[in-house]
Amino acid sequence: MFENKNNRTELQNLGEFGLIEHIKNQVKLTQSGSIKGIGDDAAIIDNGEGQTVITTDLLLEGVHFDLSYCPLKHLGYKSVVVNISDVCAMNAIPKQITLGLGISNRFSLEAVEEFFSGVLLACERYGVDLVGGDTTSSKSGMVISITAIGIAPAQDIVYRNGAKENDLICVSGDLGGAYMGLQLLNREKQIFLENPNAQPDLQGFDYILERQLKPEARLDIVQRFKTWYLQPTSMIDISDGLASEILHICHQSDVGCQIYEEKLPIDHLTRELGMELGLDATMAALNGGEDYELLFTIPMSEYEKIKDRAEISVVGHITHKNAGYHFVDRQNNVHPLSAQGWDAFLSK
Amino acid sequence: MFENKNNRTELQNLGEFGLIEHIKNQVKLTQSGSIKGIGDDAAIIDNGEGQTVITTDLLLEGVHFDLSYCPLKHLGYKSVVVNISDVCAMNAIPKQITLGLGISNRFSLEAVEEFFSGVLLACERYGVDLVGGDTTSSKSGMVISITAIGIAPAQDIVYRNGAKENDLICVSGDLGGAYMGLQLLNREKQIFLENPNAQPDLQGFDYILERQLKPEARLDIVQRFKTWYLQPTSMIDISDGLASEILHICHQSDVGCQIYEEKLPIDHLTRELGMELGLDATMAALNGGEDYELLFTIPMSEYEKIKDRAEISVVGHITHKNAGYHFVDRQNNVHPLSAQGWDAFLSK
Repeated sequence: MFENKNNRTELQNLGEFGLIEHIKNQVKLTQSGSIKGIGDDAAIIDNGEGQTVITTDLLLEGVHFDLSYCPLKHLGYKSVVVNISDVCAMNAIPKQITLGLGISNRFSLEAVEEFFSGVLLACERYGVDLVGGDTTSSKSGMVISITAIGIAPAQDIVYRNGAKENDLICVSGDLGGAYMGLQLLNREKQIFLENPNAQPDLQGFDYILERQLKPEARLDIVQRFKTWYLQPTSMIDISDGLASEILHICHQSDVGCQIYEEKLPIDHLTRELGMELGLDATMAALNGGEDYELLFTIPMSEYEKIKDRAEISVVGHITHKNAGYHFVDRQNNVHPLSAQGWDAFLSK
Repeated sequence: MFENKNNRTELQNLGEFGLIEHIKNQVKLTQSGSIKGIGDDAAIIDNGEGQTVITTDLLLEGVHFDLSYCPLKHLGYKSVVVNISDVCAMNAIPKQITLGLGISNRFSLEAVEEFFSGVLLACERYGVDLVGGDTTSSKSGMVISITAIGIAPAQDIVYRNGAKENDLICVSGDLGGAYMGLQLLNREKQIFLENPNAQPDLQGFDYILERQLKPEARLDIVQRFKTWYLQPTSMIDISDGLASEILHICHQSDVGCQIYEEKLPIDHLTRELGMELGLDATMAALNGGEDYELLFTIPMSEYEKIKDRAEISVVGHITHKNAGYHFVDRQNNVHPLSAQGWDAFLSK
């Protein structure tokens, strides 16, 4: 490349978050409409009447998905959902998406249509419009770039930096399923590679496979917050695992946290499959990623509003920054919490 | 893939525009804020006070750029400019961008910084903010995805579909330079491959090389339209060559056109280099692409407003649809005008 070889910093040593942090520090916002730039689930632009939420994701074949076990329709659906999830994580309502698609000539029109049928199904499911994009040939793998646009009144937007000491840490749905689903698909792929006549043994784990192949964004939770008159103090969606995400909130809010193993919402199928595969369900919930549930904090005074909601679990509480970041296991042993979430630069 | 092999349509047979048309026909807009979807330079979203313009481009190594002769800083700059150009083509003012970047581990941090320095230089030059994005590792080539966001009062937005019979067809700046620049770089690359000790012979062609390596978006023209009280009836930016772009306007406006060779604005360096390389400058202007000038139509009654502007050339006029699409050469021979602009699926 063009860099000075005597002054070379490897990206692996920096990691994805390190690189983002490095870039963020060089970027200054100059437009009066630019309310929030790099560093949250989405950017915020003021448009006079309300605020526009914008988020972009880049998905690459061989890094983010494997076409040998991800059907194109599911891939299209999931690509939209992960971006809608980012808009939801700002407590905003998704409205439009744009799509950039790079595909090689080995794809037929029918294959592209299969992908688009998933994209459009997700658009319909979440009430968003595909308003534009770009298609191009790719000389290597498939490339998917989606930008999602949402809106919200300025006072409704929830950032990562608003968590306060004593706030309750909550998650929607259950965790670890998407990770277990991926492990199951990996196992079946290996078996298939060793014996192409083997039939995949996926029975009984439909829910877990759906968590991986057809995740949903929790727009329903964002809509319920309004009916519950509940405004979280901070929020993020769980794409990289609970541990990694709560640390984002803590760092940006300048607070500490305590998470309890016994409070983690884990589906019984996730546990069962974990036992079958020899994997710890708690680790999957903490570090697995791709569950696309919402992680948010609320003042303790708001506890009544969520305590009887099956779809919300309180998994811990926010502490003073000096208390650090802790995980309390079932035996009441306290462990330091570290982000072992998926890192695109380390996973190679 | 997953398609039915008995029913396979090759993407090459459809082409990039055919694929976009095919997709467009399956997309319905459902949100009241979605004013304009697929099919123009950018999408339009109503935000109550004004309108938001959104456009996305995907740039792939080996398809859109060649790192062996495109310095990373230039690449960063150009990636931003081509998107800002799309916002300008809607007669809107660009305000923000988001960036998705896929890079392999063979890049160092310093190389990524080089790329970003170009991105940020363009942001500064055009007064836009980088508000968000996504970085990830790529297993194959470099992937750049940029979304640009602009604003304009609803009545200022110019679409591709407003050209009327007898309107004048105008272009800003000059054409064909970017294409000639690419040919020059290609020649020097070949010479270098055959003899790595050869020094590149690029002297005297700085302007042409800049047209290719560091194009500019014509935000200045959009700003001048306001001071001239001029509202084009249709507009598009010239990324794929004049011929391809005027046909987009004609098809969407349901009109014909006549373009005159003698009126094409071609810089003398473009002609000189054309002679040296044995390439026709007129063909470069018509089909070369990547000039990022604005192509627009105005009512004949507005001619006075542009006739003495050196930066605007009238290259033809709009005719009735039944008259067809024509190109008149210097010998007054009339040729049918066809789009030979660059097509990502055909150029492989």
